[in-house]
Amino acid sequence: MKAAIFKGKGQVVVEERPKPTVREQTDAIVRVVLACVCGSDLWFYRGVSDHPVGSVGHEFIGIVEEIGTDVKDIKQGDFVIAPFAYSDGVCANCKAGFQTACIHAGFFGQGAEGDGGQAEFVRVPYADGTLFTVQGKDFSDETLASLLSLTDVMGTGYHAAVSAGVKAGDTVAVVGDGAVGLSGVISAKMLGAERIIVLGSTHEDRHKLAREWGATDIVDARGDEAVKVLMDLTDNVGANAVLECVGSDESYKTAFAIARAGAIVGRVGVPHNAEVDATGTFYRNVGMRGGPAPVRAYMQHLYDAVINGDINTGKVFDLTTSLDDIAEAYAAMDERRAIKTLVKVSEL
Amino acid sequence: MKAAIFKGKGQVVVEERPKPTVREQTDAIVRVVLACVCGSDLWFYRGVSDHPVGSVGHEFIGIVEEIGTDVKDIKQGDFVIAPFAYSDGVCANCKAGFQTACIHAGFFGQGAEGDGGQAEFVRVPYADGTLFTVQGKDFSDETLASLLSLTDVMGTGYHAAVSAGVKAGDTVAVVGDGAVGLSGVISAKMLGAERIIVLGSTHEDRHKLAREWGATDIVDARGDEAVKVLMDLTDNVGANAVLECVGSDESYKTAFAIARAGAIVGRVGVPHNAEVDATGTFYRNVGMRGGPAPVRAYMQHLYDAVINGDINTGKVFDLTTSLDDIAEAYAAMDERRAIKTLVKVSEL
Repeated sequence: MKAAIFKGKGQVVVEERPKPTVREQTDAIVRVVLACVCGSDLWFYRGVSDHPVGSVGHEFIGIVEEIGTDVKDIKQGDFVIAPFAYSDGVCANCKAGFQTACIHAGFFGQGAEGDGGQAEFVRVPYADGTLFTVQGKDFSDETLASLLSLTDVMGTGYHAAVSAGVKAGDTVAVVGDGAVGLSGVISAKMLGAERIIVLGSTHEDRHKLAREWGATDIVDARGDEAVKVLMDLTDNVGANAVLECVGSDESYKTAFAIARAGAIVGRVGVPHNAEVDATGTFYRNVGMRGGPAPVRAYMQHLYDAVINGDINTGKVFDLTTSLDDIAEAYAAMDERRAIKTLVKVSEL
Repeated sequence: MKAAIFKGKGQVVVEERPKPTVREQTDAIVRVVLACVCGSDLWFYRGVSDHPVGSVGHEFIGIVEEIGTDVKDIKQGDFVIAPFAYSDGVCANCKAGFQTACIHAGFFGQGAEGDGGQAEFVRVPYADGTLFTVQGKDFSDETLASLLSLTDVMGTGYHAAVSAGVKAGDTVAVVGDGAVGLSGVISAKMLGAERIIVLGSTHEDRHKLAREWGATDIVDARGDEAVKVLMDLTDNVGANAVLECVGSDESYKTAFAIARAGAIVGRVGVPHNAEVDATGTFYRNVGMRGGPAPVRAYMQHLYDAVINGDINTGKVFDLTTSLDDIAEAYAAMDERRAIKTLVKVSEL
């Protein structure tokens, strides 16, 4: 099969690899229909964080090709959405809704053969606990793209909003206007936020989508200047809830600085050299929640929202490539020519 | 008037000072009936943190002696409970229930003349927003002690439990078995915790009170050993909610380590060189909330609990001294001969 292989900084290429097979009887093999590139893939692509040479990609939807003998709920031929992390679905952490902390959890696309979503096939451990079955297959390209967004980015934005405790009437600040930040905007809107202030880039395409999804104010400054603008916008009180959707030290500092007393920073950006000021946050009673999103826990709710036409988060994909063109899929995001790239792998 | 004066490490003495007077027309002057020494007073007493030479004490109940012309709700002769922080009661943060982040907030006992609770009289800024009026004056010594506990320790323990999101049926861990930790135990019980595990000292008197107030398990180990014991007690899952009631780096590390995936550490111990691991907490979705407790926000609820006999948190005081004996009040707590010292200042 064809698979995207990370070779080192700035190099993701398509190579021929053995098609994965069932290894544990709880596995399923999924034929990938749509995959995509994640903002977090850019960390290793840019050489900022380590990643093993090998398979990449943790976002995919597709058709179940084969199952192990212990797989009970997932059937061959099912159209499935895979969360970016697999989980057994039965341990205490899964039952509590934190599947990314499953005692058997793992992330797709960590360099091992056949575990990357940017490929023709993927081996999915704990298929019953991990995969979500879609009813029917007759969807528009737009709806398919929205279903693909549930594998990570939309569930992650939603987790930021839930973690930050967004409630009806809130003034919410979203730090970051990448795909996750934009998903955070629509999530805050779903949870009833009245005012949504986005702190992000100067990219007009992102502003447009943010406004379409509920942003009321856009701040394209950074650091201290962004903090100043937000405080001015909120009568010097700060935001009721803050969604941290970047993970850098600067974005952390900004997020904590703009939280009003008693507010929670819902953080989903993987922290990179980010620090939390234990004392500064203490005196203002500013809290922090979040982590790798248990997108599996939110899947049914967000799936219903897509199917009912309440959200159209597939719009976050503004570039489509084939698997053969995976290098361009990465380059376009790296160079900020695209918010997020959808990768067409096979026909539904 | 007589007032306790901090002179430097290990030295708190009673000296004659000018009786405070109304300075702003929103002030009240309160004649102190009961005061006490706080675990946080030990930080400067032991020379661990800085404190200006001068007035000390931030916990007191007493009788309103005089009011400024702009004080509307508080009357001369009222029997009042003072939270450890004053607040205007009308700013956005006060209205949101975070009075310790009031835009006019300040803490009592910060070294200025007449602002310390361990004294015969205290000047209370923003009397209407700050003070809570008790109905009647005919109370037992036990009830008076419980009302005194609402100035800080009980409200602080309650804030830890509320911040940690304790709910019915939870397994709750309380780090620290000082007066705040013990108040955290009774607070967790009030919020419906099913199992309450205290990580604390080897002091049998503290264990006894902890068990009386709802603790089901007591772990008298520290650091890694305490973590191990707690994980064994919880089938290696950790606690649903953790109350951090110390503030040291070791207690922070312990608190975050024993939180189950998705749990919140409710922290009320003032952090002293404590660090928060941004990445370690991220991957387990462990959150953090808390800070200086807005005890004013909890006052009515906890007052009702005292008056109804639901809680008897005055039992946390296991030594009583006069104001003249303030040195012994500090020494006994410093040497852990007392959990918390009540200081009788005048007759109700």
